[in-house]
Amino acid sequence: MDERRRYVVLTEGFITDRHAKTAFGVMRYGRDEVVAVIDSSAAGKRVSDFHPHLRCEAPIVASIADALRFKPTSLLVGVANAGGFLPPAFRPYVLAAIDAGLEVVSGLHEFLNEDEEFCTRARLSGATLWDVRRPPERIPLFSGAAYRVPHVVALAVGSDCAIGKMTVMLELEEAGRVAGAHPEFVATGQTGIMIAGKGIAVDRVISDFVTGASEQLVLDVSAGTDVALVEGQGSILHPAYAPVTLGLLFGCAPDILVLCHRAGQKTVEDFDVTIPDLRSLARDHERILARVKPARCVAIALNTAELDDVHARAAIAAAEAETGLPADDVVRFGAAKLWAAVARAAEATEKRQPAR
Amino acid sequence: MDERRRYVVLTEGFITDRHAKTAFGVMRYGRDEVVAVIDSSAAGKRVSDFHPHLRCEAPIVASIADALRFKPTSLLVGVANAGGFLPPAFRPYVLAAIDAGLEVVSGLHEFLNEDEEFCTRARLSGATLWDVRRPPERIPLFSGAAYRVPHVVALAVGSDCAIGKMTVMLELEEAGRVAGAHPEFVATGQTGIMIAGKGIAVDRVISDFVTGASEQLVLDVSAGTDVALVEGQGSILHPAYAPVTLGLLFGCAPDILVLCHRAGQKTVEDFDVTIPDLRSLARDHERILARVKPARCVAIALNTAELDDVHARAAIAAAEAETGLPADDVVRFGAAKLWAAVARAAEATEKRQPAR
Repeated sequence: MDERRRYVVLTEGFITDRHAKTAFGVMRYGRDEVVAVIDSSAAGKRVSDFHPHLRCEAPIVASIADALRFKPTSLLVGVANAGGFLPPAFRPYVLAAIDAGLEVVSGLHEFLNEDEEFCTRARLSGATLWDVRRPPERIPLFSGAAYRVPHVVALAVGSDCAIGKMTVMLELEEAGRVAGAHPEFVATGQTGIMIAGKGIAVDRVISDFVTGASEQLVLDVSAGTDVALVEGQGSILHPAYAPVTLGLLFGCAPDILVLCHRAGQKTVEDFDVTIPDLRSLARDHERILARVKPARCVAIALNTAELDDVHARAAIAAAEAETGLPADDVVRFGAAKLWAAVARAAEATEKRQPAR
Repeated sequence: MDERRRYVVLTEGFITDRHAKTAFGVMRYGRDEVVAVIDSSAAGKRVSDFHPHLRCEAPIVASIADALRFKPTSLLVGVANAGGFLPPAFRPYVLAAIDAGLEVVSGLHEFLNEDEEFCTRARLSGATLWDVRRPPERIPLFSGAAYRVPHVVALAVGSDCAIGKMTVMLELEEAGRVAGAHPEFVATGQTGIMIAGKGIAVDRVISDFVTGASEQLVLDVSAGTDVALVEGQGSILHPAYAPVTLGLLFGCAPDILVLCHRAGQKTVEDFDVTIPDLRSLARDHERILARVKPARCVAIALNTAELDDVHARAAIAAAEAETGLPADDVVRFGAAKLWAAVARAAEATEKRQPAR
């Protein structure tokens, strides 16, 4: 779908619940438009009445029929609960959306495309069902074509999972656009895909094809993009998920790395792996890439959410002193400074010629 | 299946064809017994009449009925053709084996378990169908349990794919047994699985689970094993397959690495990646592991198949001088020397305590 979607976001009963974070992510960062929200408990209000920071003025309505007035193209299942199952209260809305011919988009573990009733009704109405976690059917093996893309590729890497790598790249995308550039966020995980409207959940791809999937993602950016900002996954320090991280490192063939870290975190969560100093960690990434497709770490994105302003500024200054690289918390202080670092590095990048 | 299989190997028409290499691998290295071979073109002869180096005296017969006299437990589909499809001439034999209640084992891309006729007949006879390329249904995420196994774990790594990593570990297993130790080969790819009778094709596992699959493999070695000899996959230098390699490096949590290299090879096949000197390559592996679970490279296994004896010996001497490690070609000169290096390193290994 090249056109932007016009989303009805289904949050029925969850408009103020953290499990609607998928919906909030799409409202705050999404490239597609949110034209209405369905939540019968809050019908008549607007999203901004509950969540002013999301910058979303969409009206809240009580039914698919009401939402159709806003000419939506798609229904987004806006909740990610623990089990990954569709909440029973959502089912009638999904069916009504299917009957109305809307595309239905879901990030749940339970695939819409494996639900017999949804599939049958979708065949009748012509509606499409998009399970964003399901990788495409035919992913080619890595070919080396990623070495020849015309745009610069920047990849977020980090000291652990769930430290804000996606948010960093989304904030950099906004800052780049404000600065007049044409960056594009490239989604590699479920929430990122819903925000971007496209992408591949690389951790769900068969391991032989994770580099191929990563390559397809950087080949598939919009025409005119100057910098692809690829959402990272996992960490090279993570005993369980490092292979996915390496799949992005080799498959995206990045020119530039942005190193993300939660200020003060000493070990990888769940495992007793010590996180080295940021300078060493940056160098580790550069070394792994050096023999295959070199890239430089050009900025440090710190997540200082757990610190007060004074300590946040001190942590940023310390990271800069230690690494000699620009550092910032892009959520707290904006992404202009780190975007400038990425843009400088991008300008200095000579896209390397075919390695194959 | 804890008991050894008694295999009938189906090579119908392929007994002298290189596409029967799966069969030859099982005959030469297999832990299971080959009690008969079915190939109507050669019935009445023995495998050793065609392939003395395989050390297999199994009789060749013309039908499943004839083979049943040797009390087989299983039929091995002994051919891997280019398309990965079952040769049409094989089908009646497979059906007869199923009807006789034999387990049928296949490494083909085309899964037996997706063939309606095979499945129906197997349900009737109680026969099981094992597609070795298909990963098990429920692979757990990596947990860290691999850090606590009582045996030493040795992993083959290398400068490229298809340079003999599996053969090196199989030869080391034989040499270890001759030396009175209790090593066990751990299969991570299709041919290795057929030889070992168990294993997981890690490159077919969803990328999030490749470390978990690798961990299961080292947890699942036979009781009494002193050294697990894990078949490697790919290379950290390979742009497409390095994530699978890293999955084994982190998931198996090796104590010892055996570095494999084809003497004289300068670049990774298919990609213009320069293979560094062996000392640097060994150190690269040690560095990647250092922060998570350290391991040392203790031996260099050279594949000198393309050299004459004089040049092979010179290449081995050069590798030893360069790395300070024992080097050898285990196929050409036997694996006793490299086994001794592995055994020494294994004795010096203190199994590290839980990292979690």
